[in-house]
Amino acid sequence: MKKEDKKSALHIAKGTAMPPNVNQNFKLKKRKVKTAEEYVQGILSGNTVLLSQAITLVESTQPKHQVLAQAIVEQCLVHSGQSFRLGLTGTPGVGKSTFVESFGMLAIAEGKKVAVLAIDPTSQMTGGSILGDKTRMEQLSVHAQAFVRPSPAGDTLGGVAKATRESIVLCEAAGFDFIIVETVGVGQSETAVHSMVDFFLLLLLPNSGDELQGIKRGVMEMADLIAINKADGAALMAARLAKKQCKNGLHLFPPKASEWIATAELCSAVQGTGLDTIWQHLQTYQAHTQIKGYFQHHRQQQAKYWLEESIGQALKNRFYQHPAVEQQYERIEKEVLKGVLSPFKAAQQLLDLL
Amino acid sequence: MKKEDKKSALHIAKGTAMPPNVNQNFKLKKRKVKTAEEYVQGILSGNTVLLSQAITLVESTQPKHQVLAQAIVEQCLVHSGQSFRLGLTGTPGVGKSTFVESFGMLAIAEGKKVAVLAIDPTSQMTGGSILGDKTRMEQLSVHAQAFVRPSPAGDTLGGVAKATRESIVLCEAAGFDFIIVETVGVGQSETAVHSMVDFFLLLLLPNSGDELQGIKRGVMEMADLIAINKADGAALMAARLAKKQCKNGLHLFPPKASEWIATAELCSAVQGTGLDTIWQHLQTYQAHTQIKGYFQHHRQQQAKYWLEESIGQALKNRFYQHPAVEQQYERIEKEVLKGVLSPFKAAQQLLDLL
Repeated sequence: MKKEDKKSALHIAKGTAMPPNVNQNFKLKKRKVKTAEEYVQGILSGNTVLLSQAITLVESTQPKHQVLAQAIVEQCLVHSGQSFRLGLTGTPGVGKSTFVESFGMLAIAEGKKVAVLAIDPTSQMTGGSILGDKTRMEQLSVHAQAFVRPSPAGDTLGGVAKATRESIVLCEAAGFDFIIVETVGVGQSETAVHSMVDFFLLLLLPNSGDELQGIKRGVMEMADLIAINKADGAALMAARLAKKQCKNGLHLFPPKASEWIATAELCSAVQGTGLDTIWQHLQTYQAHTQIKGYFQHHRQQQAKYWLEESIGQALKNRFYQHPAVEQQYERIEKEVLKGVLSPFKAAQQLLDLL
Repeated sequence: MKKEDKKSALHIAKGTAMPPNVNQNFKLKKRKVKTAEEYVQGILSGNTVLLSQAITLVESTQPKHQVLAQAIVEQCLVHSGQSFRLGLTGTPGVGKSTFVESFGMLAIAEGKKVAVLAIDPTSQMTGGSILGDKTRMEQLSVHAQAFVRPSPAGDTLGGVAKATRESIVLCEAAGFDFIIVETVGVGQSETAVHSMVDFFLLLLLPNSGDELQGIKRGVMEMADLIAINKADGAALMAARLAKKQCKNGLHLFPPKASEWIATAELCSAVQGTGLDTIWQHLQTYQAHTQIKGYFQHHRQQQAKYWLEESIGQALKNRFYQHPAVEQQYERIEKEVLKGVLSPFKAAQQLLDLL
């Protein structure tokens, strides 16, 4: 069994509500293969077991699974889109899991069905997953109105991001109308999440003075809201200072296309304080951008972005995997680095190999 | 005569020191065509007339010119690199031309040969050019130790950037050892300049309070130094405040790979104040990064970036100009925007057309 398959099988085990005494590790292979229509019917009726299996297909790298997955996604597409998509980022230790648990429960109390997805490009390296430890989401992960999915494993961010974006479609088709996409601040994962959500929330810690140091390039300016988490007890004073500094920092960025003015708030996911205010910002944002037509426009721009990204990525894959290119690339690149061949001539030489 | 050709011809006229009574507009066509070797010999001997003509070839979109240009660039490549490359940006009105004039003259006084190039993606639209009005560089543009080149016209930033990057090679081969590449804050032009220079200088105005509002995404974090220009007379107080705010703003960004800590300074290009300090920063930067090996490493990374960019761009051009893609793209994109076709499936459908 390949590592990839094993992971996929594990995802099924984690994602479903089957009794723990059933050995599910080989389910996908042994089970009679369902048709795309059967999956779609199951998903539309809110069956989370089939939803979870379909997501596993979306994540699979096997061509057979990919064909089936694409058929499912295409059929679910027209039933998707009726949700609010929240992107969430923050460095490890900021309390993302606890925040998702508390905020997810609040969304359920507000009448929402909550799906939690993740993009974690480090999971392949560490073998872990930011949502793998579901014990940190005790209530949410077993709630009937919630669906918590560990982050997919994958070799490339592009592949992982594609799987997550398609998983959003499947979750929405299954009736989940509040989607949380979580990520850690690694590489380009935040840009990927930002390009698939309606609202981008940055969680920070109240370390006074240093609180902005850890922010990756561009993350702060992507944020629609910054929440200083763990703003309780002895940390409250530092959190207030951090909030003020964040607000000042946000002023450095140009106005957003959404005309939304990003701000900063305090919260404590553990104590449940400040979450109402954040929820209110989300409501205001949705109302504001829907009236202006930006909400839908933004989603169309995202779809366009993903179309162009997918084309660009596929073209590059074809190129770099071409046998002649694979054979010559290193030699030609070395000449460029040595300064004896210009990058432009080198590119042409490589393209001429096709 | 096509507009493009006319512009190219005009560039020759502007870039050379020929007497004004010679009609140069049709020079390139009528003149006996030189070989690449003749151009290279001329450039290496410091002949700015041939340098200017070679740059015109680099900028030309005619296949015949492109072949010749590439041969010239490749031969000049091994003679290039021995320079300091300064990138300069700032919104219109900040005084870039005056700064280039004053700072270029200072560089000459320090024993440098100065070449000024530009990337201006707006020049095609407006018909103007940020360096077109050379009357703003009265001393520099006629100085024997300087070479001022108006920004090339071009349909795409990629094409313009390629021409500028190759022009740097030619200028260096001609003995210019201080290269200034200027741009306006439009589109991705700053990223393009940043990816071809050693040091990136951002010019700002001392409008107190608002001075950071106009900065495009990511430009401030690219800056190795911010210079508050026009810091003289009644504006001095506001400039000091702006400097302080800039320094605070720069702290928001993570440390640079160069380990260089960006800062802000005051200057007045008109009065010639503060330029020495900026010059000193450049010297310190060069010494600092050369000792650490970063200077050369950074240039190699830039060459690698341009190799990958050129490949990506060429692949995209081939794809989007493919007749079948041209015919189908709009229809398929519309389905994506309507939400009846996923971006990923759409990408695949388009790629299958090849």
